Amino acid sequence: MEEPIRVGLIGAGQMGFWHARCLAHDIQQAELAAVVDPDEEAARRVAALAPGARWVTSHEAILSDPSIQAVVIASPDATHAELIEGAAQAGKDVFCEKPLATSLAEADAALAAVASHGVKLQVGFQRRFDPAYQRAREIIAAGDLGPVELAVATTRDPLQTEHPAGGGNAAIFIQTTVHDLDSLRFLTGLEVVQVYATASYFGEDPGEEGEMDTAAVVLRFQTGALATITDSRRTAYGYDVQVEVMGPKGKVQVGYERQIAVRHFSAQGVSHDHVYWYIDRFGVAYRREMEHFIDCVARGATPEVGGADARAAQALAEAAARSLREARPIDVPLLA
Amino acid sequence: MEEPIRVGLIGAGQMGFWHARCLAHDIQQAELAAVVDPDEEAARRVAALAPGARWVTSHEAILSDPSIQAVVIASPDATHAELIEGAAQAGKDVFCEKPLATSLAEADAALAAVASHGVKLQVGFQRRFDPAYQRAREIIAAGDLGPVELAVATTRDPLQTEHPAGGGNAAIFIQTTVHDLDSLRFLTGLEVVQVYATASYFGEDPGEEGEMDTAAVVLRFQTGALATITDSRRTAYGYDVQVEVMGPKGKVQVGYERQIAVRHFSAQGVSHDHVYWYIDRFGVAYRREMEHFIDCVARGATPEVGGADARAAQALAEAAARSLREARPIDVPLLA
Amino acid sequence: MEEPIRVGLIGAGQMGFWHARCLAHDIQQAELAAVVDPDEEAARRVAALAPGARWVTSHEAILSDPSIQAVVIASPDATHAELIEGAAQAGKDVFCEKPLATSLAEADAALAAVASHGVKLQVGFQRRFDPAYQRAREIIAAGDLGPVELAVATTRDPLQTEHPAGGGNAAIFIQTTVHDLDSLRFLTGLEVVQVYATASYFGEDPGEEGEMDTAAVVLRFQTGALATITDSRRTAYGYDVQVEVMGPKGKVQVGYERQIAVRHFSAQGVSHDHVYWYIDRFGVAYRREMEHFIDCVARGATPEVGGADARAAQALAEAAARSLREARPIDVPLLA
Amino acid sequence: MEEPIRVGLIGAGQMGFWHARCLAHDIQQAELAAVVDPDEEAARRVAALAPGARWVTSHEAILSDPSIQAVVIASPDATHAELIEGAAQAGKDVFCEKPLATSLAEADAALAAVASHGVKLQVGFQRRFDPAYQRAREIIAAGDLGPVELAVATTRDPLQTEHPAGGGNAAIFIQTTVHDLDSLRFLTGLEVVQVYATASYFGEDPGEEGEMDTAAVVLRFQTGALATITDSRRTAYGYDVQVEVMGPKGKVQVGYERQIAVRHFSAQGVSHDHVYWYIDRFGVAYRREMEHFIDCVARGATPEVGGADARAAQALAEAAARSLREARPIDVPLLA
Repeated sequence: MEEPIRVGLIGAGQMGFWHARCLAHDIQQAELAAVVDPDEEAARRVAALAPGARWVTSHEAILSDPSIQAVVIASPDATHAELIEGAAQAGKDVFCEKPLATSLAEADAALAAVASHGVKLQVGFQRRFDPAYQRAREIIAAGDLGPVELAVATTRDPLQTEHPAGGGNAAIFIQTTVHDLDSLRFLTGLEVVQVYATASYFGEDPGEEGEMDTAAVVLRFQTGALATITDSRRTAYGYDVQVEVMGPKGKVQVGYERQIAVRHFSAQGVSHDHVYWYIDRFGVAYRREMEHFIDCVARGATPEVGGADARAAQALAEAAARSLREARPIDVPLLA
Repeated sequence: MEEPIRVGLIGAGQMGFWHARCLAHDIQQAELAAVVDPDEEAARRVAALAPGARWVTSHEAILSDPSIQAVVIASPDATHAELIEGAAQAGKDVFCEKPLATSLAEADAALAAVASHGVKLQVGFQRRFDPAYQRAREIIAAGDLGPVELAVATTRDPLQTEHPAGGGNAAIFIQTTVHDLDSLRFLTGLEVVQVYATASYFGEDPGEEGEMDTAAVVLRFQTGALATITDSRRTAYGYDVQVEVMGPKGKVQVGYERQIAVRHFSAQGVSHDHVYWYIDRFGVAYRREMEHFIDCVARGATPEVGGADARAAQALAEAAARSLREARPIDVPLLA
Repeated sequence: MEEPIRVGLIGAGQMGFWHARCLAHDIQQAELAAVVDPDEEAARRVAALAPGARWVTSHEAILSDPSIQAVVIASPDATHAELIEGAAQAGKDVFCEKPLATSLAEADAALAAVASHGVKLQVGFQRRFDPAYQRAREIIAAGDLGPVELAVATTRDPLQTEHPAGGGNAAIFIQTTVHDLDSLRFLTGLEVVQVYATASYFGEDPGEEGEMDTAAVVLRFQTGALATITDSRRTAYGYDVQVEVMGPKGKVQVGYERQIAVRHFSAQGVSHDHVYWYIDRFGVAYRREMEHFIDCVARGATPEVGGADARAAQALAEAAARSLREARPIDVPLLA
Repeated sequence: MEEPIRVGLIGAGQMGFWHARCLAHDIQQAELAAVVDPDEEAARRVAALAPGARWVTSHEAILSDPSIQAVVIASPDATHAELIEGAAQAGKDVFCEKPLATSLAEADAALAAVASHGVKLQVGFQRRFDPAYQRAREIIAAGDLGPVELAVATTRDPLQTEHPAGGGNAAIFIQTTVHDLDSLRFLTGLEVVQVYATASYFGEDPGEEGEMDTAAVVLRFQTGALATITDSRRTAYGYDVQVEVMGPKGKVQVGYERQIAVRHFSAQGVSHDHVYWYIDRFGVAYRREMEHFIDCVARGATPEVGGADARAAQALAEAAARSLREARPIDVPLLA
């Protein structure tokens, strides 16, 4: 057996915990070497998942550790771009949670660092590693639907899911819609040329910057194909991610509803539960994306969801934010 | 347009009402000419469904009316065989609700009268006219499952459905299981060679004869294929008729659950209604079986669900009753 | 029994045929008295559904017949408004297939005639009579979801469904989207204040006026609630009408997929059919809307889906068409 | 962190591999110390799952190793009882795959050894650790269905699943039906008082002892409640385990069908995949049962699925086999 890839994890929040768990228990080829978080207690708790992992409160200790080959960034969104740059300069391969950055300018700086230092970069669009999204893409790519004409994507997050604060009225697009934007690109293989977006806020306190919690987006692809995205962060009934993609020969529909395989029939009707937590829906995908990253690092291969895809989704999310501000559809330039 | 077939209906209960409604409104080729019921009020109410239909309290008036070409028997089970004989002697074609009779001896007498007078006979196994049962049979008959090996039939009747009193512990087999017995013969195209049955009673008053409301039956077919039937007359959640038939290449599953196409998602989970009334499940099948009967009468053709099928199901229901009494599997002779 | 309402049907196409069938067979209170169609053969065939119905090739014969109390208009869209005016002037109550008119100006003229002559008007938004839409509305109106925040409506029409020619790029909104617009108003009880729409064409010949066959629409309601509508006239898999409405406490989802209650399990997976024809999905709703109309005529009551609702949906469809032309969201004035 | 429980695995077949995987990767409290299999290659391959695990070809090496605290038996059925005895004598706690033994006499000898040596015993009825079975049991135990009246259990195994040879016509009951027997006891909390069973063989070679591959069983519980079980080892469409339990107030239905959350809609209808491999259905349950065992060993607690439950299921499976041989229902004594 080869030497495992030693990984440093930056960010010991909910998502960091999950990545740590996969690295420590599920992926034989990886070794969780260190966990960084300014919250010492959090760093210690997550490091405890792996025997031998140390914990620190500053990422410099990881970036300067030559025994660490790769870093996983699961820190607050606003720190992503700078950490990618730092890791690239330190010659570490990088897995970064989405979004790549909070602005396209930052994203470009980070990607430039990745390119000039020749490190690997994978971004956390886990839906691409979900077996259902992958099967749907195969059906579409095989031409079984004919050319894509129309798609409908929905993301519903329970009220209890915490979203990072800040970002103003663009935050819902950068944090949530970006998943739908990436997965529509992934599924259809098409590029978006126009974005229209609007949004509302139904929560109790939008903050000074006017956070939004409900969004509706229309995309036009280069072929004339259309898509809608609706996102809500306020569902009582559970975590619900679905997408339909249609062509002249048929459609594919992706989505789970039921979690536990029990239905209860009574005089009040038939009832069952609903998937509630995003890990319940995408736990396998999170594990598989990390396996892919570690495998690419070990083989010196380029990860499938790299900087170009992350930049494209970021650009569309920013176009959606601009559409909301300017109340008009925004044209998006096709990259060469 | 040809002259419509004038039909006399015997029995103005729930099932008689539904047949009258089909004859009066849905089937252009039929004319509901008269309705018989000892309950004058019931007869009058059902006759009112068709302009021109008269009502009487004794069936002789119908059997002696030369303008009436066909009778539909929806009277209590115990009267079926005798009414078939009477109708046959009067030269009327007969549609008779299941069961054909309450004993095989009576059934044989009725069938002899039908044969000797050369009238048509159709028995009310409406499942044979349900589009789902028909499609399942096509799949099986086309060999898409391979030779049938195993089947599972379930019939669940709500607590509120009234079943005819009397018949003792055989009643559930004669009245309810007979549908499953007939539909398994219909779907598989196979004959049963052995029947094991047991039953229980969970209601409040089994009566002197020891009525049963819950039954479990095992069938062995001539090929070694096996089937189970479970019947309950005590469901709170609705009317639920399902069947699965399996062979080495696959299975077909027949059954509806939802009535109204709405689902409600809340913090308590996902819920929807359930089909509750047998007419909601089989309304189309009841109409189609009557269309078939009227069409056969008009064309002088032999109905598809005639005396031989009804007798076979009756024989199996009696074997089930005997199995319950004798607490052992009962062999059933294969007819030539 | 009271005298039946004598009805004249204008238009003997597919929809006219279905209305005739309901009037002739299902609705005891109605009598199909006459059928008009410039195509003599079509008029004759539809009139044959009812004994005693006559057929004519010009609607004047119906409008001038004092024995006819009500007319059902199922002629080409472009004739609706003028026929409503004519019927109103003749003192007939009117059921008119949607759309009310092909422009808001025409619609207003027709509604003025209805008002000044004091006749009843019902417009053919049959979804309002579908048990599932009605149940969904009850759940919403009862507050079970909390205030509506987000809705997703989809209409998919098979390639084989013929749509009336003409109308240019507004046609898909006037003919198809209008159903979604009306049903979202019906379900949510809210008024729309802004419409954004875009559309594409994937068929073989868009005609000179640039017909569209695929549309995406975003609505903003007065409360900030958002909705998307996607419509396609090019589905291979069937007729598929669905809607989801969500509030902070849950969502309702309306929609059927399966037609026949059979599933086939094989080594290739599990398969079942899909509803294909709009009559299979909405046959009951078409019957119930016509019963409601006849009942209103008989009782002198005002139909539930009258001119105001039809005008509102028409105004939104026109706003969608304008949004497409001008490539920007269009504000819609709230009526007092 | 406490010292992990060192476990010896006996049997490196498919099920042994899965248990090894759980012990090596998922359960922090366990350490896979050694793997035994007469097939050296198999033992070596499974031992490779855990760093530090050794492999041997004879179980004596494990039973005599004082550092090993617990054994997991996943060897051929015919060896289970003797291995349990040996392990008990060596003072090891035991997890044994079902069935406990191939006859009740052997089972009793094994249980006596367990009792006299005071070791823990858990038997591999993994369905008891499936979240759906557990939720169903909670609903039933809470009285939400009222007293159980009727249950329908089905187990369908794909043609490709290998079953242990030998055992003659009792094998299907001992190996497969035993799961249904145990899970019906688990779900209903009731004891069986009578068993009727029949079976058929549709495969290519039943062997000298007359193996069966298709079975139908009827159970009567002490309360008069009835249940049917149908088992087939010949499904082309997948692995399909379902159960319905009904009382006067409702029913629960347990079962998954779809594996990957994609549906494909085309002109041929709607299709999706089916769960195919038993690990895909019960992977979580296998992990949870092993966690429970290790936790009981660590805490010195008594596992929930011990000898008494395993013996009861074994007794019912033997009664089924006897019913098949004697072609009559078999009474089962209620244990005090």
